[in-house]
Amino acid sequence: MNRADCLTLDAGDPLAAHRAAFALPPGVVYLDGNSLGALPRATLPRLQQVVEHEWGTRLIRSWNEAGWVDAPQRIGAKLSELIGARAEEVVCADSTSINVFKVLACALRLQARRPQVSETPRRVIVSERSNFPTDLYMAQGLAELLGGYEFRLVEFDQVGDALDDSVAALMLTQVNYRTGAVHDMAVITARAQAVGAMTVWDLAHSAGAIPVELNAARADFAIGCGYKYLNGGPGAPGFVFVAQRHLDAAADDPFAQPLSGWFGHRSPFTFDTAYAPAATIDRFTVGTPSIIALAALEVGIDTVRNAGVPALREKSVALAELFISLVDARCSDFGLTLVSPRDAPRRGSQVSYAHANAWPIMQALVARGVIGDCRRGGGSGNDPDILRFGFAPLYNRHVDVWDAVEALRDILVSKTWDRPEFRADKAVT
Amino acid sequence: MNRADCLTLDAGDPLAAHRAAFALPPGVVYLDGNSLGALPRATLPRLQQVVEHEWGTRLIRSWNEAGWVDAPQRIGAKLSELIGARAEEVVCADSTSINVFKVLACALRLQARRPQVSETPRRVIVSERSNFPTDLYMAQGLAELLGGYEFRLVEFDQVGDALDDSVAALMLTQVNYRTGAVHDMAVITARAQAVGAMTVWDLAHSAGAIPVELNAARADFAIGCGYKYLNGGPGAPGFVFVAQRHLDAAADDPFAQPLSGWFGHRSPFTFDTAYAPAATIDRFTVGTPSIIALAALEVGIDTVRNAGVPALREKSVALAELFISLVDARCSDFGLTLVSPRDAPRRGSQVSYAHANAWPIMQALVARGVIGDCRRGGGSGNDPDILRFGFAPLYNRHVDVWDAVEALRDILVSKTWDRPEFRADKAVT
Repeated sequence: MNRADCLTLDAGDPLAAHRAAFALPPGVVYLDGNSLGALPRATLPRLQQVVEHEWGTRLIRSWNEAGWVDAPQRIGAKLSELIGARAEEVVCADSTSINVFKVLACALRLQARRPQVSETPRRVIVSERSNFPTDLYMAQGLAELLGGYEFRLVEFDQVGDALDDSVAALMLTQVNYRTGAVHDMAVITARAQAVGAMTVWDLAHSAGAIPVELNAARADFAIGCGYKYLNGGPGAPGFVFVAQRHLDAAADDPFAQPLSGWFGHRSPFTFDTAYAPAATIDRFTVGTPSIIALAALEVGIDTVRNAGVPALREKSVALAELFISLVDARCSDFGLTLVSPRDAPRRGSQVSYAHANAWPIMQALVARGVIGDCRRGGGSGNDPDILRFGFAPLYNRHVDVWDAVEALRDILVSKTWDRPEFRADKAVT
Repeated sequence: MNRADCLTLDAGDPLAAHRAAFALPPGVVYLDGNSLGALPRATLPRLQQVVEHEWGTRLIRSWNEAGWVDAPQRIGAKLSELIGARAEEVVCADSTSINVFKVLACALRLQARRPQVSETPRRVIVSERSNFPTDLYMAQGLAELLGGYEFRLVEFDQVGDALDDSVAALMLTQVNYRTGAVHDMAVITARAQAVGAMTVWDLAHSAGAIPVELNAARADFAIGCGYKYLNGGPGAPGFVFVAQRHLDAAADDPFAQPLSGWFGHRSPFTFDTAYAPAATIDRFTVGTPSIIALAALEVGIDTVRNAGVPALREKSVALAELFISLVDARCSDFGLTLVSPRDAPRRGSQVSYAHANAWPIMQALVARGVIGDCRRGGGSGNDPDILRFGFAPLYNRHVDVWDAVEALRDILVSKTWDRPEFRADKAVT
């Protein structure tokens, strides 16, 4: 395998044309779409239309005329097709963090109403120690408000063992943000439900990246992020999935979703003093949504829909396999340890390596125009720093993989990373 | 007074030049800036810069390089000058509804930690029956999570009488959304604090519209809206104010603000498993903020800063006085009842009239290019519909007021509003 072979693979790539839908800077190999997806070329023209015409010219009338008022549902319906859900089960709103609060609160509330099968009250929330921290933080805040809940944080492979009839809810991110390791949603959901626990799935690194089948897995609740593989822009709104059976079960409980804002009211413009929720997924919206942010998210979701998740997954696996095999072949003996699963079906759309000098290596890569990122922490507090390389098959090419590994090899061989400018204090992100 | 007099007033208006900073459609008199502020001409160029350069070209690097990571604080600091707060006490984030939840939860939590002065536990939340509904709804959701709180909803003039030592928190919107009536923040805050209650002020119809002096009034907490007089665009992020003394008091309590997302963590990129909040206003941010939405908000806030609140207030009063006097003189005998205070200091930047046919009258006005809106409800459930006319002195002129009243007069005289197309079912907004 050489660079020419990569170019040949790109020439035969059925998704190659989709790269033109993105505005990528020249000279950059962007392998951080798992953190912030690239800019679709259609985004700015769409924002121009929203800002100049819908807001500027039509003003307040656009809430009805331009469909602003049901944008969270309309865009949620588009997204639902990418995650194996029904259109009526998904809404785009708020941040991922806020959405964790909504669905976990709802899961615990519905759980508490179920007939108890054990003497032991269900007061345990199980999650993974290396779950993305904001999920844990939001759960901690909710648990403090509710009182009486405890956390059981376990390692990736111990989730099944942590499930018993004391567990109220299992909260997991399907694809681990550090390693890219994928939980088997159907198997784990079934195990959780077998002991009577509710499941909350975070799809931050799944939606738009791997095939997700929420209803086939009989998932209970899910949330996710709009600004990674969905290309919705920095801080794009997140999304919420609630299985129809839970929407139905919650229908008689006004505060099953406790962030009871006016957009979740069954009739917001009646201006009643008492909250009465919509019986639908609408109740998982809260306040007035940012129309500009939602417009950019919609364009991003369309880029994924235009390609289709199965084709994206196929190319994602090919890019990651190529990356791993090239690192194996060309960057051995430099202290890189693959921390992602080697087995493609167990890996999301990223490849991560631990290295004692992960930070300066990544700074040296970025200086060469190869953009990935670093993550540290993730559970025990002394986890090694890792280098993350995300693959966004909508715009990443085989030749990008080749060039990235060559840059990595050069940096490792020459020890360029050991320069002072690359060892400077770690900034955020 | 005639139309020529209005044009003369506009010619001498020291704020006249600010109108050119907005992209207003021709032929429209826009008196709904109290619901959705008009589009600043600087917004789209700024969004283009954020989207094309910061997101598209610099990609993930912009979190540091372009100041994305502290945009909530930077824009909050700009806003703080418009509401009499310190820069360190204000942050822009999330929706107004979500922000109500944060500050009320914090107020109740800090309240519960205070030494009790009475045998009676403080378990009452006082608000106004005609407060904007989402504030009531969010408080209801929080009270349901906490358990044991009760609501005391009173009329506008009864707030003082409702305060006693059972009250944990008083939650009011400073300027009533239906009538524009203004609460005296300093007087009411002092009365609330005299009985030991915390105050939560909603500045949705205040910020950018009237002088607000949070610290001079010794306000405890406040929130507000970015898309009305601040011109931040549809569904713009809201804001949070927390008095420094409460930030200090909350410093040892990780969940004093229970929506404990990673952006509120003292060190988000350490990826700890346990939430440990920033000691600053940063803890009132939650998830990753929408950078595009914040960028539009910043431009909007700048439009207000460029004019200054005192000058805006002076012109706002002049426009409203003119409107009322013209309606008095030219639209009497048509069943319009002024429901806003006639006394300018007690009125925000809107004028409202009750009318049995408010809805079709407003539809007829909109068809003539005079855009206000209607509100009904607001408390008792059989309140009359009202016509709302908002005055945004950044872009509204005296001649707009003249033309609006002439259009209203024509519609009332000719009974144009009685046409079937204007009586159609009430749509949202």
